[in-house]
Formats: sequence, C-alpha cells, structure tokens
Amino acid sequence: MSLTADLLEPLRRGEHRALGRAISWMENGHAGARDLMARVWPHLGGAVVVGITGSPGAGKSTLTDQLARTLRAEGQKVGILAVDPTSPFSGGAILGDRIRMQRIAADPGIFIRSMATRGALGGLARATQDAIDLLDAAGFDTVIVETVGVGQDEVDVVACVQTCCVVLVPGMGDEIQAIKAGIMEVADLFVINKADRDGADQVEREVEAMKSLAMPEGWDPPVLRTVAQVGTGLPELLARIREHGRWLRSHGGLAHKARERARLRFESLLAEAAVRRVKAQAGPERLDSLIQGIADHLVDPYTAVGGLLGEA
Amino acid sequence: MSLTADLLEPLRRGEHRALGRAISWMENGHAGARDLMARVWPHLGGAVVVGITGSPGAGKSTLTDQLARTLRAEGQKVGILAVDPTSPFSGGAILGDRIRMQRIAADPGIFIRSMATRGALGGLARATQDAIDLLDAAGFDTVIVETVGVGQDEVDVVACVQTCCVVLVPGMGDEIQAIKAGIMEVADLFVINKADRDGADQVEREVEAMKSLAMPEGWDPPVLRTVAQVGTGLPELLARIREHGRWLRSHGGLAHKARERARLRFESLLAEAAVRRVKAQAGPERLDSLIQGIADHLVDPYTAVGGLLGEA
Repeated sequence: MSLTADLLEPLRRGEHRALGRAISWMENGHAGARDLMARVWPHLGGAVVVGITGSPGAGKSTLTDQLARTLRAEGQKVGILAVDPTSPFSGGAILGDRIRMQRIAADPGIFIRSMATRGALGGLARATQDAIDLLDAAGFDTVIVETVGVGQDEVDVVACVQTCCVVLVPGMGDEIQAIKAGIMEVADLFVINKADRDGADQVEREVEAMKSLAMPEGWDPPVLRTVAQVGTGLPELLARIREHGRWLRSHGGLAHKARERARLRFESLLAEAAVRRVKAQAGPERLDSLIQGIADHLVDPYTAVGGLLGEA
Repeated sequence: MSLTADLLEPLRRGEHRALGRAISWMENGHAGARDLMARVWPHLGGAVVVGITGSPGAGKSTLTDQLARTLRAEGQKVGILAVDPTSPFSGGAILGDRIRMQRIAADPGIFIRSMATRGALGGLARATQDAIDLLDAAGFDTVIVETVGVGQDEVDVVACVQTCCVVLVPGMGDEIQAIKAGIMEVADLFVINKADRDGADQVEREVEAMKSLAMPEGWDPPVLRTVAQVGTGLPELLARIREHGRWLRSHGGLAHKARERARLRFESLLAEAAVRRVKAQAGPERLDSLIQGIADHLVDPYTAVGGLLGEA
C-alpha cells in the first residue's frame, strides 16, 4: 500500500475512513505510524482545540454535540474525541458512544471518535494527542476533546488544549468538590450546565469562592450557564471560547500552550520508547524472573529495576 | 540520621509519624527511599488489601470509614489510603480529607493518608503501592485503598488489590454507566450504597445484566446493599470480602495477584528510571531544543524521540 496515495492524501482531504484508519494506526503502533506522523507534522497548527471536562452525568456529551452543531452552522469542520473512562481490559467504545457516533456520522463535516484507555504506558494521552494532530492535518477547524477529567492522563490532555471548559452541574454531592478543586487550575471557562435545575446559584457561588482562593494570574475564567439539552447558552459559550483564544494570542499564551503540548508528547513517547528498549535488551525470561523475585519478596522493585538498568 | 533506629524500627512498630515520613520519602524520591524499601521488602505479605472504588458521590469515604471501624472493633489495625483525584498542580490533600483525617487520627489503630496525584510518570500508582507496602511492613492487618477508579493509574491500583469493591448508588445519570462498564472487569464485589434510596432495584438489575454480559470465569462477584451512613450491610460486606479471600487462596488467586502487583510495580519504576537515565544522558539543553522543534513543527515527536534514543 502506498502511504501517500492510500492514506495521506485522503486524510488531508478529510475523508473519514482514512482518518479512522490513521488514528487506529497510531493507537496500535502500526509499522507505518511513525512515518505517517512525520509526513503529517509540517501541516499542523490550524485547528483550535477545545477541552470539555467534568464529572460523569454533567452533560458533557450533550454540550459537546451542541457546540459541534453551532460550529457546523458556521460551516466549520468539527472533530470530536471522546476520551473514554473504560478500563484497559474492555478496550472498546461503550454502547452510548457507538449510538451517538451513528447519529452524528451522517454529517461528513463532523468526525467523532471514542478514545478508550488501552493499558499502554502513556497510552491514552498519547493516542488522544495523535488523534488531535491527525484531525488538524485533515483540515478540521475545531477539535473538541471530551473527558471525565480525573486521572493523570486526562489532566495531561486537557492541560494543553487551547481552551479547557470545566462543566459543573447543580445538585451533586460533596465529593464532587474534590474534582472541582482538582481541575480548578486547568480551567479556562466554567460552565454550569443543567442550569435550569435547583442549585445553580449555589454552584456558581462555590466556583466563585474557589476562584478567589486560586488567585488566577492574567485570564480570569468566566462562569457561564447552559442548558445543553435545549441549546441555551451555547452562543455565549462559543463567544467566550473565542475571547479566550484572542486573549491567548495577545498574551503569548498560544506559544506557551504549544510548547507544553510538545513537552507532553515528547515525554510520553520517550517513556514508551525507553521502556521498550530496556525490555528488548533484557529479554522476556530475565524480566519474568525479576518480576517473580519481586512477588516472592526476594528482591524489592527498586533494587530490581536498578540492577536491570545498571546492566543494560 | 540512622535509617534503622530513627525510621525503620518505629515504622515496624506501626508508629504513625514514622509511617507518614516513610510514605513522604517514597513519594518525593528521598535519597534514602530505595534503601528503605529494600529493608522493608522481606517483611511484607501480611496485609489484606481491599479496594473501594466508584463514582464521586457514591459514598466511598463513608463506606471506607465504616469498614475500618468494623475491623477496628475486631482489634485489627487498619490503614486507609485515599487516592485523590486532585490535579498534579495543586498536589495536596483536599479539605474534606484533612477534616476526616483529624477525626480519625485520634485512634492509633487507624492510619489514614491522602495520596494526591503528583504529576510524576506513574506517580500515583507507584506512590500508592509504596504506601501499601509500608503499611504492610508496619503491621497493619488490612489496608483499604479508596479511589474514584477512573483513569489508568487508578485502574492499575485497584486491579491488583486482593478484593476490589465497586460502589454504585441509585439515581445516577446514564453517563455513570460508562464507569460501571469500565471497572466491571476488576470488580470482585459490587456494593449498592445508599440502598435506602429509590432506584436501588434498578441499579441491581443493571449490574446483574452487565455481569451476564461479562461472563465471569470462576468467582462470581456478589451484589450487596449497604447504607454506609448508618452502618447497614457492613457485616455482610466484610463477610463477602473474607469469602473472596478464601476463594482466592483455594484457587491460586493470591499468587496470581501478587505477581500482577509485582509486574505493575516493576513496570512503573522501570519507566521512571529509564526516562531519567535518557534525560540525564541528553542534558537539559538538548531536551529543550528538541521540544521547541516539535512545538515549531520542525520535527515530529516520534522522530525526535527516535533520534534521541538512537544516539543515547
């Protein structure tokens, strides 16, 4: 197969089949994956990347879909990456996402993909970054990354999108505060979704209280209200996302974000590659015997790893 | 400072100050951390490790505290590790955990520690495993690991505890199903908490339906009901945890879990150490210039990493 004729050219034209295959190549470590990314790399930088993060049940999917529709109405091409909290064991997309994908798939201007945790080292963050780049190279104007936003991988991903929207919802329990506090520092916008429910005022007060504790420098994250189910607040959300984009441009923030994203990509790939090299040098039998030794309490893991790297 | 006299001996006696300091040593990569773990390693294997995982708001903390109290009433020493979904940026324990720790701290037979994501590669999983081992070496009979259970790090942690309890709650939205599906395969027990609320029957039906899809081999995860707030169902939960422990022992499961845990520890430490070595060899200037080249679209990250490892 010719990479250029069969994958790269249709990919650059934005064809969904080519995009889907390219993302799978990167996810699965296909032999042509590195070459593909090298060929794609000079064409990047055009897409605006927006993160939508928040607790389960906050309505992220609905908000994402509505935002995508609003952008479509302007003639934009929109990519959606749903970063999926399923376990590494099940691997695939969940049922809800599949139904959703079928619903949206009719529109060639929207590409949606569920990114499942693969169990690979740095797997989810890397695979999502790869997919963002492929959508960018395929001429998508906006890429929306939707994620539950807990766990290191997901924080890594949303920390380097252009604009990270944290979605909250009235009437969640106390424990939800932990997540709110945790993603506080990566939030560029707060969205109180399902704002027609009781308790919206209280959530807003809590967010404002947290903001005052966080002492933001520069950009002050606005707090918006939406009812994504019926489209309320979507134009305002889009306007604020763009305002944040302009603010970044005029304050050197885009270069900073690009650099942070480059660092993340570099570090996660380096971790994968460095481990692969050490393992290949050691061989499976030596690795198995070291792991068994740890399990049997004959050697602690720090000493085992130190020994292995000392030899390598 | 003498490691043996000042830290190891009080640690082995179960003194909280020594435990806290030892966990911090491991978290922060203190110069004595490796030696500490090597000295502790031969003394491991006594503790039963139980995972409590589930969505925010499911009542994990209350369930954990009640389980700890039930075990305390039997005279056990209990360690609690609250794996915290806060971001790598804020680092510390959240307010609720601090209050909780003060409440429980009066009892020398319970040790509670909030494990925050540190941003280090494999940081959360490794730090939690280290803390489990230190509690084990300190003579704690049961260690309860409480976590939101999404994200690779957290799945890694709960996947190799002895018994993983997945906590569900009636009346959560559809999206919660994603998490339930995701942790399905690591669940040894399902706990429907707040079971006095409307919808408990429905949650139970959903869990049973999922279980029938998953086709478990061997152990069939039971579905229990609790109202942790008032202690309802706690004796039954403890009985089932012990039943699962006996089942593992009689089916070779403990050795399998120990091996999986050893593999996880080995792999995460290997990743950290291998990256550290490559970075030290390359030096900060070379790393910065590679990252800037990726950000400027001069070189793709795969080629950059390949080049660096080829040289190293």
